[in-house]
Amino acid sequence: MRMSRRPLSAVLALLASPVPLLLASPPAFSDAGMWTFHDFPRELVKGRYGADLSPAWLERVRTATARLSNCTASFVSPDGLMLTNHHCAQGCLDEHSSPEHNLLHSGFLARTRDEELKCGTQVADVLMGLEEVTAAVQAAIRGLDARSANDTRKKTLTQLEQTCEQQSRRGRYGPLKCESVDLYQGGQYWLYKYRRYQDVRLVFAPERDIAAFGGDPDNFQFPRWCLDMSVLRAYTGDGKPAATPAYLRIRPEGPQAGEVVFVSGHPGTTDRLLSVAELETLRNVGLPRWLLRAAELRGRYIEFGKTGAEASRIVEDPLNYLENAIKVRRKQLDALLDDRLLKAKRLEEEALRARVAADPQLAAAIGEPWSDIARAELREQELYLPYTFLEQGAGFNSHLFTYARTLLRAAAERTKPSTDRLREYRDTALSRLAQRTTAPVPVYPALEKLTLSFGLERMREWLGPDAPIVRALLTSDSPDTLAARLVDGSELADPALRRGLWDGGAARIDASHDPMIELARSVDGEARAVRKSYEDEVEAPVQAASEKIARARFSAYGTSLPPDATFTLRLNFGTVQGWKEDGREIEPFTRLARLFERATGEEPFRIPGSWLALRAQLDPQTPFNLSTSNDIVGGNSGSPLIDAQGRLVGLMFDGNIHSIAGSYWYDPQLNRAVAVDPAVMLEALRKVYKADGLLSELGLH
Amino acid sequence: MRMSRRPLSAVLALLASPVPLLLASPPAFSDAGMWTFHDFPRELVKGRYGADLSPAWLERVRTATARLSNCTASFVSPDGLMLTNHHCAQGCLDEHSSPEHNLLHSGFLARTRDEELKCGTQVADVLMGLEEVTAAVQAAIRGLDARSANDTRKKTLTQLEQTCEQQSRRGRYGPLKCESVDLYQGGQYWLYKYRRYQDVRLVFAPERDIAAFGGDPDNFQFPRWCLDMSVLRAYTGDGKPAATPAYLRIRPEGPQAGEVVFVSGHPGTTDRLLSVAELETLRNVGLPRWLLRAAELRGRYIEFGKTGAEASRIVEDPLNYLENAIKVRRKQLDALLDDRLLKAKRLEEEALRARVAADPQLAAAIGEPWSDIARAELREQELYLPYTFLEQGAGFNSHLFTYARTLLRAAAERTKPSTDRLREYRDTALSRLAQRTTAPVPVYPALEKLTLSFGLERMREWLGPDAPIVRALLTSDSPDTLAARLVDGSELADPALRRGLWDGGAARIDASHDPMIELARSVDGEARAVRKSYEDEVEAPVQAASEKIARARFSAYGTSLPPDATFTLRLNFGTVQGWKEDGREIEPFTRLARLFERATGEEPFRIPGSWLALRAQLDPQTPFNLSTSNDIVGGNSGSPLIDAQGRLVGLMFDGNIHSIAGSYWYDPQLNRAVAVDPAVMLEALRKVYKADGLLSELGLH
Repeated sequence: MRMSRRPLSAVLALLASPVPLLLASPPAFSDAGMWTFHDFPRELVKGRYGADLSPAWLERVRTATARLSNCTASFVSPDGLMLTNHHCAQGCLDEHSSPEHNLLHSGFLARTRDEELKCGTQVADVLMGLEEVTAAVQAAIRGLDARSANDTRKKTLTQLEQTCEQQSRRGRYGPLKCESVDLYQGGQYWLYKYRRYQDVRLVFAPERDIAAFGGDPDNFQFPRWCLDMSVLRAYTGDGKPAATPAYLRIRPEGPQAGEVVFVSGHPGTTDRLLSVAELETLRNVGLPRWLLRAAELRGRYIEFGKTGAEASRIVEDPLNYLENAIKVRRKQLDALLDDRLLKAKRLEEEALRARVAADPQLAAAIGEPWSDIARAELREQELYLPYTFLEQGAGFNSHLFTYARTLLRAAAERTKPSTDRLREYRDTALSRLAQRTTAPVPVYPALEKLTLSFGLERMREWLGPDAPIVRALLTSDSPDTLAARLVDGSELADPALRRGLWDGGAARIDASHDPMIELARSVDGEARAVRKSYEDEVEAPVQAASEKIARARFSAYGTSLPPDATFTLRLNFGTVQGWKEDGREIEPFTRLARLFERATGEEPFRIPGSWLALRAQLDPQTPFNLSTSNDIVGGNSGSPLIDAQGRLVGLMFDGNIHSIAGSYWYDPQLNRAVAVDPAVMLEALRKVYKADGLLSELGLH
Repeated sequence: MRMSRRPLSAVLALLASPVPLLLASPPAFSDAGMWTFHDFPRELVKGRYGADLSPAWLERVRTATARLSNCTASFVSPDGLMLTNHHCAQGCLDEHSSPEHNLLHSGFLARTRDEELKCGTQVADVLMGLEEVTAAVQAAIRGLDARSANDTRKKTLTQLEQTCEQQSRRGRYGPLKCESVDLYQGGQYWLYKYRRYQDVRLVFAPERDIAAFGGDPDNFQFPRWCLDMSVLRAYTGDGKPAATPAYLRIRPEGPQAGEVVFVSGHPGTTDRLLSVAELETLRNVGLPRWLLRAAELRGRYIEFGKTGAEASRIVEDPLNYLENAIKVRRKQLDALLDDRLLKAKRLEEEALRARVAADPQLAAAIGEPWSDIARAELREQELYLPYTFLEQGAGFNSHLFTYARTLLRAAAERTKPSTDRLREYRDTALSRLAQRTTAPVPVYPALEKLTLSFGLERMREWLGPDAPIVRALLTSDSPDTLAARLVDGSELADPALRRGLWDGGAARIDASHDPMIELARSVDGEARAVRKSYEDEVEAPVQAASEKIARARFSAYGTSLPPDATFTLRLNFGTVQGWKEDGREIEPFTRLARLFERATGEEPFRIPGSWLALRAQLDPQTPFNLSTSNDIVGGNSGSPLIDAQGRLVGLMFDGNIHSIAGSYWYDPQLNRAVAVDPAVMLEALRKVYKADGLLSELGLH
């Protein structure tokens, strides 16, 4: 496990993805694969499905796809209109809600552009160009030991990004954001160049009760009845709707069973190419411990939500997020506890090692990287607790603390050259970080106390009451009394104050006596120290060894296998199909009629009044959700499902329960992705929401 | 895993126990072993420690040890006075507490016998005799297939118990309770014959803050400072203090470092002789799923406790219990996830299989029992969810439901002959069951709603919202609304009403429209059906196969290995010693002075006012807690630590963190038991509690 590479907090829920179980079975036998646009297996798709995706098709789809901070979206009008999931816009709905107006419950429709609501922390990135920089990285680290290579690799990538951004100002698209991407666990390094829209606004969202009908019990289940859609719009820096000529047209009737379909989007993380030792750390340490903490927090959230209407409102978004993450991790753990999986992974690894051993020159060049990783994993297990609680912040679980640490560290890091900083504070990352840190999003003190007290209490449990840092924090306090004092005393909930501290830099920060900043300051030395140990003793040897394994894999299989998901743009193929569950056939489409039959009148099986009132007018045969064999995973939420002609025929929002094991392998018999059918979106927009302006902009009167 | 054999609900917290890691290493090299009194390795102990435990010593210690419903206790005066842990009496303290008088916080001391408080559900059993009945059981099931053998075995044991109790009325001790005991997983069957005291009263308990100083963070930790003691008294049926001439005298100064010491008590469950397939079910299914549910419930309890003083009071006992169980299961899972353990278990199993294969006659007689178990385990995994939620009651998590189901089933079962009933309703079990069901213990509606709603919600999550039983229960309800209606509508919180329903039998029950009884009735068919499947398809083949494995084991090793713990009386040996942790020496004694240094003033590191006021008068050098190498486990709580002269030199209350892996193996380097030193008990009774009468009865003026 590489914790630094698992930005789950940046990926909302979801699905799962595929790589052939055994390298011996070529991808041709399944729909596995989250392919890059630059190595898409065009011939394979043409041969199997008769669909020939031209370079023009690929370019149009690529530039019609946007990466949100947590999800994927696609442009569906020339004026920057984007279609994504309701759960991808939940933070934005929350931001504009109050005890009196709960947009999550009531839904939202902007009748004019002026009514569109700005999402304070959202962003939309469109991939305009790609450039491989593997050679430059390899040249920079050649001959260095693992630790120096790790530092140098980061500095080099920071430098490459910076140069790329500078050069883009003179390029044909104007200023772009350049981000380095590591494919194949160090096998390839790329620069991905994005056009960034930092002004994203909310246009439409249905009521939560229909968007997430079935709630957590139905999550990752199919058959399903969710109108998990929302509509956003990208704006340029000068407040004009973005011009997006390469948008997708919606095919109103949706796809047919058996039809070939494609998903373009940003799958977050898969671990299909990890070594067995890394998977074992996940199974034995990472997942069980995370699940224990998350399950308890779930219980705390639920009980807190019962203390009143406002508590229920403010806890809804974090609870949804958490429950989704719990289901993912729980099924990931199940997959790793299934001995067939680790046995297959061991066979894969042995096969690759045998190929290396059979090639003396290669063997001499790469040595024994699997053993290097196994050793580093032992060290990772030792560092796991302090790293998780101190540096990853599990011990200080609160938004206010995150603000405090970001402000403190940004002030310190900005006094150094960009290449010498902690990488998340490099120059090219600062404007986005400032946006996140100073956006006017609500902070709820009661919830802050809950999560902070929980973090402190578990830190005391896991590090032990006599650990010096625990002792120092809780000399004469309980987690509750300390959390209350910090939250009540801090003024960081005020966005203007945070903006002032951000702009004021080290001088303002040094002078601050805000108790949350004082806390961040008091633990920073120890947190940075454990991070340094982690980077030097875990990340560095694992990355060095992974680069060697990637070299062995390329030598054996070339790029006939796709890289693991990295929350960068991918394209995959599949067909509209159900599957067989315990001998029963699951049909690939659900229909509107059954929605009403399944309702109980109580959350989360409650249908909104707007739908109940119109029940008689809605066509009961309308296709609602559908399943496909596309290989997707969390981060693909909101991705367009596209037909061979490049039309939008669905909106991905989930996978079935088997799709979660897709983190480690793709099972063509069982792994299915789940989408909203265009037919139900249009039925709802027309009859329930009477969103004529929106329909008109979509070209669907 | 055999769920039916893991009565965790009957075993309060605790420790862990040992069997040699590999059968190849004879027990002589460690203090491993929870030995029966009838197969105690007297020569081994004499040879190693020079202590010769005479038959008289053994008999006296055996009859000075009592089994409580959840713990162990020992007689410490001739008038039935018993010493046990504070946490073993927590239910009794809770029963007598109110919002105004919280005995858990204030402590309790009866100045006269009239003031002693009856513990409504407590019981004290003293083992007066033992009789092996293996031959009778084997004769009864000879030639039967596994399923019939399983039924017949139970009937036979029921019959043997009944006959034993009838015969005991004419015996030298008068009426005894006879319970069958399965040792070595079906290798031996015994009747254990107890004198039962069904009237147990509370004499003394210190404040919870000193009894459980350090709370959950310190639980399973050492060094430690807990006065985890309470004093009870056994009464005869006619309300007189029990005559207990075979009591233990307290050695006031406690033991010395390095001294040989013995623990007599009732370890609850170990799984050291389980097959690898059973351990894998525990690792892959049983423990992870239990932990997920328990961690969430912990979070719910904690947050509920913050809603007010009364909520905090009523949730304290269940929360303590739960947190202890979580720590146990968490470390058990860690042990099973440690690949060295399963590797060692596989080697053990292979060695035994090889010995069987080398003996053609034995091989022909027992066949392939390991494969039979592996097959049954697959079936267990399929049945796990419905069995857990429906029959084990996880879906109906509430005291009221437990009352309802017990009353309903008792009424139905009592119409059948004793041998044909569900075994927990056999005649010999009824009086105890009636005591548990009708005792005047408080029921808290708010807590009932919390746990019941939680159970229903998780049942919906795990069985799925479309499972017929879930659908039927929650057609137009949420878990919250259903739980509220059931709890508010039920009258089963009234002990007199329960007594009436118990006595009234089927006629009264059939006429009842109590909603909780109606719920129990509506799910009983499905619950019994899944239980029958579980018994026929899991329990039966596993028990039949285990009997064969036991036969192989006896043939290879005789009884040189002790049986797994079964909450029956055991004796083990060890010495007072610390251990080495990460290269650091842990001393075996703690002293009173450090208690005050570690206090924070906030729970759970708060020292009671009674102690703070007397700090100057207490001897700072008083030994407080101590660690020994004795091999103990949950159920041993309250056990006496005994020196070679048979004097009480400590009160077991915990183990170190490594002791939890003792469920599966004993590590002589790390596994340590933890006791309260007599010195601190006497210092507290004398100076803090001024319990002169008690001291006088203990013979310590």
